Amino acid sequence: MPSTNLCLDESCPPYSLMDDYSEGAHPQILEALLRTNSTQQVSYGGDEYSDAARELIRSKINCTASEAEIFFVPSGTSANLISIASCLRPYEAVITLESGHIACKEAGAIEATGHKLILVPPVDGKMTVTNLQKTIQQNQFYPHMAKPRLLYISNASETGTVYTKRELSNLSACCKQSNLLLMVDGARIGTALCSKKNDMTLRDIFDFSDIFWIGGTKAGALMGEAIVVKKHLAEGFVFHLKQHGALLAKGRIMGVQFMELFRDDLFFTLAEHANAMAEKISANFECLGHELAAETATNQVFVTLPESLVRRLQDRFRFYTWEQLDDGRVVIRIVTSWATDEMQVDKFNAWVAHWTAAKEF
Amino acid sequence: MPSTNLCLDESCPPYSLMDDYSEGAHPQILEALLRTNSTQQVSYGGDEYSDAARELIRSKINCTASEAEIFFVPSGTSANLISIASCLRPYEAVITLESGHIACKEAGAIEATGHKLILVPPVDGKMTVTNLQKTIQQNQFYPHMAKPRLLYISNASETGTVYTKRELSNLSACCKQSNLLLMVDGARIGTALCSKKNDMTLRDIFDFSDIFWIGGTKAGALMGEAIVVKKHLAEGFVFHLKQHGALLAKGRIMGVQFMELFRDDLFFTLAEHANAMAEKISANFECLGHELAAETATNQVFVTLPESLVRRLQDRFRFYTWEQLDDGRVVIRIVTSWATDEMQVDKFNAWVAHWTAAKEF
Amino acid sequence: MPSTNLCLDESCPPYSLMDDYSEGAHPQILEALLRTNSTQQVSYGGDEYSDAARELIRSKINCTASEAEIFFVPSGTSANLISIASCLRPYEAVITLESGHIACKEAGAIEATGHKLILVPPVDGKMTVTNLQKTIQQNQFYPHMAKPRLLYISNASETGTVYTKRELSNLSACCKQSNLLLMVDGARIGTALCSKKNDMTLRDIFDFSDIFWIGGTKAGALMGEAIVVKKHLAEGFVFHLKQHGALLAKGRIMGVQFMELFRDDLFFTLAEHANAMAEKISANFECLGHELAAETATNQVFVTLPESLVRRLQDRFRFYTWEQLDDGRVVIRIVTSWATDEMQVDKFNAWVAHWTAAKEF
Amino acid sequence: MPSTNLCLDESCPPYSLMDDYSEGAHPQILEALLRTNSTQQVSYGGDEYSDAARELIRSKINCTASEAEIFFVPSGTSANLISIASCLRPYEAVITLESGHIACKEAGAIEATGHKLILVPPVDGKMTVTNLQKTIQQNQFYPHMAKPRLLYISNASETGTVYTKRELSNLSACCKQSNLLLMVDGARIGTALCSKKNDMTLRDIFDFSDIFWIGGTKAGALMGEAIVVKKHLAEGFVFHLKQHGALLAKGRIMGVQFMELFRDDLFFTLAEHANAMAEKISANFECLGHELAAETATNQVFVTLPESLVRRLQDRFRFYTWEQLDDGRVVIRIVTSWATDEMQVDKFNAWVAHWTAAKEF
Repeated sequence: MPSTNLCLDESCPPYSLMDDYSEGAHPQILEALLRTNSTQQVSYGGDEYSDAARELIRSKINCTASEAEIFFVPSGTSANLISIASCLRPYEAVITLESGHIACKEAGAIEATGHKLILVPPVDGKMTVTNLQKTIQQNQFYPHMAKPRLLYISNASETGTVYTKRELSNLSACCKQSNLLLMVDGARIGTALCSKKNDMTLRDIFDFSDIFWIGGTKAGALMGEAIVVKKHLAEGFVFHLKQHGALLAKGRIMGVQFMELFRDDLFFTLAEHANAMAEKISANFECLGHELAAETATNQVFVTLPESLVRRLQDRFRFYTWEQLDDGRVVIRIVTSWATDEMQVDKFNAWVAHWTAAKEF
Repeated sequence: MPSTNLCLDESCPPYSLMDDYSEGAHPQILEALLRTNSTQQVSYGGDEYSDAARELIRSKINCTASEAEIFFVPSGTSANLISIASCLRPYEAVITLESGHIACKEAGAIEATGHKLILVPPVDGKMTVTNLQKTIQQNQFYPHMAKPRLLYISNASETGTVYTKRELSNLSACCKQSNLLLMVDGARIGTALCSKKNDMTLRDIFDFSDIFWIGGTKAGALMGEAIVVKKHLAEGFVFHLKQHGALLAKGRIMGVQFMELFRDDLFFTLAEHANAMAEKISANFECLGHELAAETATNQVFVTLPESLVRRLQDRFRFYTWEQLDDGRVVIRIVTSWATDEMQVDKFNAWVAHWTAAKEF
Repeated sequence: MPSTNLCLDESCPPYSLMDDYSEGAHPQILEALLRTNSTQQVSYGGDEYSDAARELIRSKINCTASEAEIFFVPSGTSANLISIASCLRPYEAVITLESGHIACKEAGAIEATGHKLILVPPVDGKMTVTNLQKTIQQNQFYPHMAKPRLLYISNASETGTVYTKRELSNLSACCKQSNLLLMVDGARIGTALCSKKNDMTLRDIFDFSDIFWIGGTKAGALMGEAIVVKKHLAEGFVFHLKQHGALLAKGRIMGVQFMELFRDDLFFTLAEHANAMAEKISANFECLGHELAAETATNQVFVTLPESLVRRLQDRFRFYTWEQLDDGRVVIRIVTSWATDEMQVDKFNAWVAHWTAAKEF
Repeated sequence: MPSTNLCLDESCPPYSLMDDYSEGAHPQILEALLRTNSTQQVSYGGDEYSDAARELIRSKINCTASEAEIFFVPSGTSANLISIASCLRPYEAVITLESGHIACKEAGAIEATGHKLILVPPVDGKMTVTNLQKTIQQNQFYPHMAKPRLLYISNASETGTVYTKRELSNLSACCKQSNLLLMVDGARIGTALCSKKNDMTLRDIFDFSDIFWIGGTKAGALMGEAIVVKKHLAEGFVFHLKQHGALLAKGRIMGVQFMELFRDDLFFTLAEHANAMAEKISANFECLGHELAAETATNQVFVTLPESLVRRLQDRFRFYTWEQLDDGRVVIRIVTSWATDEMQVDKFNAWVAHWTAAKEF
């Protein structure tokens, strides 16, 4: 039975562990918006805060303005569709995992810009060189097939795993060999870079890719993602932003937020918290003998539980049921974030322990 | 010579009268974001604030949930391209003024969704029934011509003028007769409805149109526009949002802002201020004998000035030069907003008077 | 050793069994083009030959003009992309086999119209109700996923197999239940309907689908496919033709060809010949102990052969090597057509027998 | 009263002077199709006839294979939409005359590929440097405006006028200066180059443009246009053909036709006939005191006539009424072609003379 500081009151709403965007912004970010609110700024991204944010991001990457341009957009789907549309000619296709965000969570946004997705099965949530090469080989019956031109991956992956430096380096080499661009969706790049499994720096991501983005929405911002575009792909990029409704008149609001996130490493501090909370939950599951459905490397925990235990937990916590297994068990997904309350994590773990012990589920 | 409280210091940066999005958000809105920041909410627009904002907007329109659905998007271009893409089949076209925002300020966003724009010359910045009918008639050589299916207008118009109830009613009747939908871009609908020339309510706009949107960005919000979609067009609308990157994970940030704007008519109070400031500037120009290039009905002033006077003003104020006339004079555009400082307006007027009197320009 | 009437001369070019479009048109079709050449006709499909062809096709289907409209387009890719684009709203997706022509042989033509393809693994080259239902179930996380709205299948399938009436009827019922449209790509519908495995009529195809097309290119025409569109989907269809460059000024040339194909069942006579030639080749392979890689139901033969035998055959015949197996054997594809010379088929079979017996490969 | 060899029988159908695609193909072309019909050829444009046709066209242009590639497509709209889509990045726009074929006769085909059209008023049916420069200047408010990148013109123009070498040279220079590509729609390039007003060769067209096409449909072919693409724009071009359904399996049918058209200058001979017929009609109108609405330079005659005369002529001839003037008169369009019967032209002229003299209209 969990300790008495747990909410036992039925009226207490379930605590959400559904995703990393259930709360607003980190308070420092809101304060920065307040502090800068009344100055007059050039619109559409020409403001001083956006410039400062770009400078800070470049300095974290350790690259110069002549190497990369940085653009802010309001959402991850914007970041993906704009990045991809800007890189490809009409007949060129994207190689992505079957589980890729663009393949199954963006309502056909990439296809809506005219481009085919070529799907590859994941291994540990990730693209492998073997699968990539096989796919390239199978897609060369030109001009009857669309031409693969860009590899899209996410780090952290959709199942929360991370790429190692060797893995990304090998993918990058394979892309160069086949004349493919490489793009990294960094919706959760903060937690990826703060993962215990990570051995990469932002500079590595930059070096191995042609275009990547740094997620703000899932990292403590109100909204906003920063797309880092290597110089050779940056010409005309701003037109794509405008054309897709992603060039905000008050671009300052994204500039201010990223300035705040990267001024003193808040971005990484918050990601570390999210990871730590996930690890605590994951360790508890493992310790209690529950089987993880994916390695817990970042802020997502995939665990296989008896359905009755899942139901018990749902009385007090909100999370996704990810998959119904044939043996009656259920895979659930727990997501932590910069805002996850450690007290609630402790409660969650206590309830898991309680019901597991009781075997009453 | 202007009074001594004017900034004569050369280092004082020019005050911007360029647009209505140079500042952040109205302080009440930021406070509301702070106040609601830490609650856990359902993502992607399912939060309680968005629901409340929808309810408030519907109550201002005086319509029910069964009559209209409301969706929030981050930008005006998003609002336009999503609204239009959602209404049309691939071969259907949009009728718009040559000066329409979608025709000349959105980088081809509508065409990027596949639809043709059919251009009509404006009269006082507005669409007229005569011009509309003529255009419809000239676009019936099917299937060689794209089929006109939607009339797009803006209120306030691009030159700040407003439609009267009779004008909109007549356009609406003409559309119905020709099986056209009618859409109103309301980027500046607040200042339109608060114009001294206005004789319409939000309900009128709703009645005469099939889809319209209420601009937040230019009305004191950080960002965000509310699209009001009549029920018959609402099915599947949310997919369009997602597909175009406009369905924000933290949809709450738009819900909160619109809740605040419509809770106590802040939306209209701010629009009135903007209009009043424009009127003050406009009246001063007229009083000093300068010729207005368009009627000042909302928060934009278009005035024709000698080039030398323009240059003098540019030392202390920022604004767009709109058109270079053949006689050497210049049309400039002054835009006021909810944030425009009346002290600065007074200074501006004083400098205009000073240099006009000095005839030194 | 093949009989002496075989071409043993090295300079004799290999006979093509690569596809069913290596020759021009059936002579009767060219004669019809000559016979009708000089009359003056209304352009863009309004000619009397197109009208007559539409009438003939409707009478073969046994449907009336109030049930279906018929449109002619120059190519199969045109037929597919136009049919699909005309049926779907921007966020709607197509369910297709991984091996579907639109999925892997049309250079991303469907995605270029903005629509996602959802891929399903084939069973005997065909869609099954089980796989379809599973796919529908896995694609309901709205609005994050594109909405499945149309099932695309081909009859004959890409591997030459055919749907039975029961199979198509079940797919149709499943589609209706899930609010999906059903489209049949009939590039090789002639050989399908003439297959010994077939138990359907054109009327069955019509009844079970919402839109389907009858291939002319692979059936003896110079070019041209006839799209049969049920009335509820036909409004505005002709605009799609025009917009995609498929509305030929001299539409008569497709009208005349289809008139000739359906005037006296030439369409079916030619398909029967193609099937008979394939069966002859297939039977010979089986008789000689070679393993078919797919059932031979129409005009395609997929057979697994030793690589050395394939090389021997390539000296005298042209065909696709379809797949390289791990055991060193090769799957080849043989395609016959209305134009396939039975003498050449006999030679082919003789050579296969010769080299198989010699075991010299 | 016309001479007695005129058809006075009411049952005699009116002779069409509506367009240049009311008949089939020139007999020599049909014979060539018959002659080459039974050979086996590589599909999708890889046949020997297409290769020969490309060689013939290049030799007429006087350019080498290393300077230009040539692709055949089934229709003019295909030629335009593919050429334009292949040249532009998503945010780039096309400058065209308001009367341009792509602007008002192709059902929004260009916009359907995502690109904006920027409209320019014509002078004598043509683009002028002055108007082009003004348009470029007015479309530089980036990134809010789409970026002009390609100038599209037609020669002959939509009203049948032709560009002089000086005019095209100046447009070309202006394009180069503004980093615009130049494309020539040559649906009627045959009649343009055979015009008495013409002072250009095919090589001039090639030199002054980046991409242009040679119309076959209006020049005596069954269908088909040949796109001449300068080498720097040719990479990947064939994918566009495939993706838009314009890569015919039996590409040979376009190869054979263009081979025949360019083998012995049949292309030009037929164009000369069309022009001569138009001139005869035009001269008769002028001689009888009727006012031409456009200069007759090629195979189109635009003439302003009393409405009653138009009605009389419509009893015996078919043609478009182009515009209803305010003074009650009507502009009609007469189009001649390679197939226009000189006897019918004589009849037409006789009837015009008869009714003009009778003043009974």
